[in-house]
Amino acid sequence: MTNDVFHKNELLDRESLHTLQGVRLKNVVFQASKSRFYRDQLFRAGVRIADINSVEDIRKLPFTTKDDLRNHYPDGMLAMPVDKMNRMHASSGTTGSPTCVFYTKNDLQTWADLMARCMYGVGVRPEDVFQNMSGYGLFTGGLGIHYGAERLGCCTIPAGAGNSKRQIKLLHDFHVSVIHIIPSYALHLATVFESMGMDPKSLDLRIAIIGAEPHSEAVRRRIEDLYAIKAYNSYGLSEMNGPGVAFECPEQNGMHIWEDAYVAEILDPETLEPVPEGEIGELVLTTLTREGMPLIRYRTKDLTRFLPGDCPCGRTHRRLDRILGRADDMIILKGVNIYPMQIERVLMSIPEVGQNYLIVLERDGFLDQMRIKVEVKEEFFVEDMRVLKNMQQSIARRLRDEILITPRVELVERNSLPRTQGKAKRVEDRRQES
Amino acid sequence: MTNDVFHKNELLDRESLHTLQGVRLKNVVFQASKSRFYRDQLFRAGVRIADINSVEDIRKLPFTTKDDLRNHYPDGMLAMPVDKMNRMHASSGTTGSPTCVFYTKNDLQTWADLMARCMYGVGVRPEDVFQNMSGYGLFTGGLGIHYGAERLGCCTIPAGAGNSKRQIKLLHDFHVSVIHIIPSYALHLATVFESMGMDPKSLDLRIAIIGAEPHSEAVRRRIEDLYAIKAYNSYGLSEMNGPGVAFECPEQNGMHIWEDAYVAEILDPETLEPVPEGEIGELVLTTLTREGMPLIRYRTKDLTRFLPGDCPCGRTHRRLDRILGRADDMIILKGVNIYPMQIERVLMSIPEVGQNYLIVLERDGFLDQMRIKVEVKEEFFVEDMRVLKNMQQSIARRLRDEILITPRVELVERNSLPRTQGKAKRVEDRRQES
Repeated sequence: MTNDVFHKNELLDRESLHTLQGVRLKNVVFQASKSRFYRDQLFRAGVRIADINSVEDIRKLPFTTKDDLRNHYPDGMLAMPVDKMNRMHASSGTTGSPTCVFYTKNDLQTWADLMARCMYGVGVRPEDVFQNMSGYGLFTGGLGIHYGAERLGCCTIPAGAGNSKRQIKLLHDFHVSVIHIIPSYALHLATVFESMGMDPKSLDLRIAIIGAEPHSEAVRRRIEDLYAIKAYNSYGLSEMNGPGVAFECPEQNGMHIWEDAYVAEILDPETLEPVPEGEIGELVLTTLTREGMPLIRYRTKDLTRFLPGDCPCGRTHRRLDRILGRADDMIILKGVNIYPMQIERVLMSIPEVGQNYLIVLERDGFLDQMRIKVEVKEEFFVEDMRVLKNMQQSIARRLRDEILITPRVELVERNSLPRTQGKAKRVEDRRQES
Repeated sequence: MTNDVFHKNELLDRESLHTLQGVRLKNVVFQASKSRFYRDQLFRAGVRIADINSVEDIRKLPFTTKDDLRNHYPDGMLAMPVDKMNRMHASSGTTGSPTCVFYTKNDLQTWADLMARCMYGVGVRPEDVFQNMSGYGLFTGGLGIHYGAERLGCCTIPAGAGNSKRQIKLLHDFHVSVIHIIPSYALHLATVFESMGMDPKSLDLRIAIIGAEPHSEAVRRRIEDLYAIKAYNSYGLSEMNGPGVAFECPEQNGMHIWEDAYVAEILDPETLEPVPEGEIGELVLTTLTREGMPLIRYRTKDLTRFLPGDCPCGRTHRRLDRILGRADDMIILKGVNIYPMQIERVLMSIPEVGQNYLIVLERDGFLDQMRIKVEVKEEFFVEDMRVLKNMQQSIARRLRDEILITPRVELVERNSLPRTQGKAKRVEDRRQES
């Protein structure tokens, strides 16, 4: 059971991996060309199957966007007739058409295999009892990880989302050793344990798979401490099956993206050219094994970078950094690409800085400028102008080191910036106003 | 794909089916004896494996109840170690311990096979698009039918419960041909179609699988008319895997219980002796193929009867009538077993009778009596005492034909009986009062 989950491809040398990718890319372009969408796309781009002979040839291929999926709803992306499909997942699609992903029987199999590989890689074994606290249904996170855990041979408890007291009863009574849980829910659940007079550390829990929402390293460490477990980051998106695209190894330093199943590119979201090695850009993915609905150069809009160097775990598949935001959030200022997440990371590493900040883009004559209003913690907001001036300059310098331009930093008192319910508005673009 | 779903066992002659049941029963008793619970039970009952040589020997075996499952929570019923299990489902268990069912990989396979058999039997084919409107998670109805549909090869849309507008969008856009839906929700959804100015008849829908709640033949016919489809009844319970225990065939006259996977007995819930052929009693089930958690003579508490005669469809497996109520509701009066559902069916077939009635059990000297208060529809409640007297006598006669004793019938005006929110209280037992 276990030997067939750990796949020799995980340790394939880079050259062989490249060769494999080239062969599979050619296959998948051939398969994709059977769909109405790609037949047109490839024709318009003037690409023939014969032009694709290595993975480097991927740059000849056109891109695919979420809008393409929406515009060719419901079945224009399919490379095989609907009656060959075995599953369909869809986004909620409250406005306009949902984005749909179809799977053949083989696609479901390879998806479950990839997911099982992820779990096996961090030490999950057939003997484990696995509780899936993800919602099921059309959302790929539920059934995706469920099938992976069953494929691996775990005793799978399809608990679904919510009902914290029942989750805790199941965790305790069935000696659950592995969970799949949303990070914020893991933190919440710990408070429910406390209110019930129980210590989450007393469980038989060993491993948590966390994902489906952005979270910081501090949140991961907090989950690990609260439950006395290891927590591993998972990356996936429905368009690429769902979970199981990239996953951490025991090193917990970046997520290996399974390059025998996907070609990953990191591109400048503006020019669509590759960014220099190790720099941040938009993750663009191509499916290498999907037969029902192959996707070529799909723009995920997710910002990340390849972590440099080899992983001590021995897996040769490259590692992605945490997702650092959305490509749509990118600011272009004086010809430089800047991501708000870069600014946030710098600010949050400075002890004097409070929780809130605002990035204002404005025009000064013919020049674009960035001004950053930064709330200072109460205890650091002193009357001494020299101290504040120093703080200001220090923050500006540290930002410059990260984003390559020097912003004007304006220190403001705690709670003086507007607060919004839900997602904070961090960028105000006033460049068109003057 | 299809040939391996239709199983030759469905047409097995009764004698061969009996032989098969005998062999499998011996196997399953052996398997069960590996669990803590059955080792003790079989020892106490003085039954040895060698004593079980035909399906008739089932009567030597002890019964299993829901309380047994609760008392041996969480794993006292398991015939194999937990680490050999591949899934666990549990009842909600809001009070006390939930009842849990474990499945090995083989058990999941045979469950999916049985469910696929049910669907294939009513004309579902791999080319169908199947939308599952059942909640997923710990409830067996969701994943149970999902796995059956995927096993059969349908394109399965795991829509889950609720969100009617999205359900309708999916039904329409993906040309869904088969659905799994709760009967009351099917009626509700038709009103949503109407409010959207759509006709459910305009869909590509052919077949609905309905179950999970009691419903009348009138409700089934109404669903069939509203959607212009065929609707088939499904019977199952988590303790016996979930759905896929018994299912209608195209004849729509009783649900074939798969006797190669279950031994079905219909017993008097008081004496636990078999009822005469064709009479109502409690359904008692034994699993014949389960390895992880076999159950022997499990008292379902569900009341039904075997329908007499052979089914024109050619399947040899006996047919169960609709579930007619719960064994706990049985009334014993003058030594006769009476089920409130029998009384309800007689009353509801009489045009003059309204929606409400009350069964009162009382003592008259040393004799127990049944008095039935029956609401009469407004238009039939006339002042003429002779008419009412005739109606009264006619109702009493028809009840006598069904329940074998003559109740006192009391006609009352519409809305004069107490109404309760939710489940109506139909029986009032005053026999201990005097």
